[in-house]
Amino acid sequence: MKALFVVLDGMADRPVAELGRKTPLQAARTPNMDRLARSGACGIVDPVAPGIPPGSDVANMALLGYDPHEHYTGRGALEALGAGLDLGPGDVAFRCNFATVNENGVVLDRRAGRISTENASVLAEAIREALEEADFGVEVKFVNTVQHRAVLVLKGEALSRAISDTDPKENGKPLKKCVPLDSSPEAKKTADIVNNLSEFLMKVLREHPLNKELERPANAILFRGAGTLPDLRPLSELYSIRGACISAVALVKGVCKAAGLDILDVPGATGSYDTNLDAKFSRALEALNEGYDLMFVHIKATDVASHDHDAAKKVWFLERVDEALGKALDALSTEDTYVLITSDHTTSVRTGKHEGDPVPAALAGPEVRVDAVERFDEINCSRGSLCRLRGIDLMPILMNLLGKVERFGF
Amino acid sequence: MKALFVVLDGMADRPVAELGRKTPLQAARTPNMDRLARSGACGIVDPVAPGIPPGSDVANMALLGYDPHEHYTGRGALEALGAGLDLGPGDVAFRCNFATVNENGVVLDRRAGRISTENASVLAEAIREALEEADFGVEVKFVNTVQHRAVLVLKGEALSRAISDTDPKENGKPLKKCVPLDSSPEAKKTADIVNNLSEFLMKVLREHPLNKELERPANAILFRGAGTLPDLRPLSELYSIRGACISAVALVKGVCKAAGLDILDVPGATGSYDTNLDAKFSRALEALNEGYDLMFVHIKATDVASHDHDAAKKVWFLERVDEALGKALDALSTEDTYVLITSDHTTSVRTGKHEGDPVPAALAGPEVRVDAVERFDEINCSRGSLCRLRGIDLMPILMNLLGKVERFGF
Repeated sequence: MKALFVVLDGMADRPVAELGRKTPLQAARTPNMDRLARSGACGIVDPVAPGIPPGSDVANMALLGYDPHEHYTGRGALEALGAGLDLGPGDVAFRCNFATVNENGVVLDRRAGRISTENASVLAEAIREALEEADFGVEVKFVNTVQHRAVLVLKGEALSRAISDTDPKENGKPLKKCVPLDSSPEAKKTADIVNNLSEFLMKVLREHPLNKELERPANAILFRGAGTLPDLRPLSELYSIRGACISAVALVKGVCKAAGLDILDVPGATGSYDTNLDAKFSRALEALNEGYDLMFVHIKATDVASHDHDAAKKVWFLERVDEALGKALDALSTEDTYVLITSDHTTSVRTGKHEGDPVPAALAGPEVRVDAVERFDEINCSRGSLCRLRGIDLMPILMNLLGKVERFGF
Repeated sequence: MKALFVVLDGMADRPVAELGRKTPLQAARTPNMDRLARSGACGIVDPVAPGIPPGSDVANMALLGYDPHEHYTGRGALEALGAGLDLGPGDVAFRCNFATVNENGVVLDRRAGRISTENASVLAEAIREALEEADFGVEVKFVNTVQHRAVLVLKGEALSRAISDTDPKENGKPLKKCVPLDSSPEAKKTADIVNNLSEFLMKVLREHPLNKELERPANAILFRGAGTLPDLRPLSELYSIRGACISAVALVKGVCKAAGLDILDVPGATGSYDTNLDAKFSRALEALNEGYDLMFVHIKATDVASHDHDAAKKVWFLERVDEALGKALDALSTEDTYVLITSDHTTSVRTGKHEGDPVPAALAGPEVRVDAVERFDEINCSRGSLCRLRGIDLMPILMNLLGKVERFGF
């Protein structure tokens, strides 16, 4: 028995005026998601808790079965893991942006004109070279990911994630000073290092020849989301399974890695509308045939459409996912494979934000108790036999169907 | 966006023989509650937990979003707050009754013949005068509220609410001695003060001329429900909103005040069958127009009918509430107002007691995902898209629709 766990980022939504007060999922033609609903059990899921809008890190942690109230230790570390950096316990990691600041330290553009990944790589290399010559009392790792995005890791003794961001979060505001958020000497020390680094990196970037050519020079690094590695008992150990993740999003890869899943790279998986959905599903099925018990497939662009306030695009992309899912369902063995499809959170096309509404879920497979739900959407699923669950409930349900959950008691 | 949160005290019920085994809500004609159900999302709610009958204090605390397991610190303080007494941290407050005791200290009538509020006020004034001359080592405040009901507050250092009641809870039983419920010196000290006060107040009342005229002299004060101020982070701070409460019940007002809501007084709001429902709803709508984000409107007499074992009266009053609600729904803007209607607990017309059954809830407003429920009652709502929630889930759900809940994680 094996399981395909499909997560459509921000898929769930609220009624949308331009869709005749339907949700995008209600408006979309999704015969294959409906097939799953019809042949399985449906429900609605509060990723974290009713009414609470979760971040992607927190939500995916919950979907993997870990209570974020207990395990969440900030986004930075998960992002760094996803970017391929090694993290030890106690290391503090940050999400960073290349940004444009003026001579008074006011942030003119938090994304340095969405600098190209190529240019950012040149600057990142310069930063690494400069860091090698410098001494901040701890080891400093810096890696750029996509466009203006980067991660920075402090590796050393007696560090703390209880410090504030330098990112002012809005253009036109001055770069912030990093301050300790508790009274520990560790927080004080870490904040001092960040402030020194912030100064140092500005000097390195200001003098770089590439920046003299750019309209929006990437002349500062913004720090935010200080985090340490969450201490998760890996799924491989909790359930004696082999699991892997396919996602284009560093943060989601980081969460999966922290949960002990392998990360499979799929060419053409972009995290955007143009992602190669067929390639992602094919690779997942292949992995299940190769001996993986669990494949966690994350698809991003549903969320992108909501952040873009584009209801029609969300409907269109849902239908694309449905087609690709259909091919995958045709190809996999229904005799030994469970399929679970859900979302990590509601993202409203109107607000463009993560919201706290529940998400639909459908679970199909050989021994699922089939209910009467025939259509996969937010309302129909609420009438299903799974009723209303929490995100952390899904993994044990799935693993139990795979025969992987140990009895509690005798 | 704003919200009208309507709570009908003890509205939910069990099947009643004389109503043809319908609940009062099933038996009542409630086109306007049904309108809310039809245009919104429904569910059932366990105010605290399945099967647990909650007190009004605990239930309303939960409906406001505070887990009573974590925050409940006894009824007395909430009652005192609602009666308009100031409470500091550490002060211990009691719900008190004027009672009739015989010369052996046996309680003949726990409510002193439901003494009139006017007479009780005369005796309360005498008590306050006597207390001014006396010294119990702490400051003592005493206020009567309605009929035999009163509150007493001990203000001072090193007090404890871990003490027993002097109220025997039944007529024909002797007045109890207050004993400490833990081994702390604070509990011992507080119990001693209560016993001294109990003696002292009997002496004051016994000698009062008014009591010589009364058939059931109010010659003792019963103490119960010792409580301290719960340490609640106010809703105004949690969600950056302005909220207010309309209720005729001191205890509910106290809970709302502890949660940081303003208390709006409405002439004609009596907490009885004759309450001016139109005035309550009108004032609520007015307040929403004046800039309040949240109006919590509590209606008491549904509960009274159950305590009176009067099913027909409960049906009649439900229909009265429905009419008044209808006018309010016609008057409010459906474009920017969410309406949530529910109950704080089931009160059975047969047992006359609070019961642990869930209560129905309907939530309507601009971005609610509308489900197929067409009728507002205990059974129809259980098929709704909110499924089964806990009382503490409602406030985050409502606040999220108002865009007031901060994201958890990134």
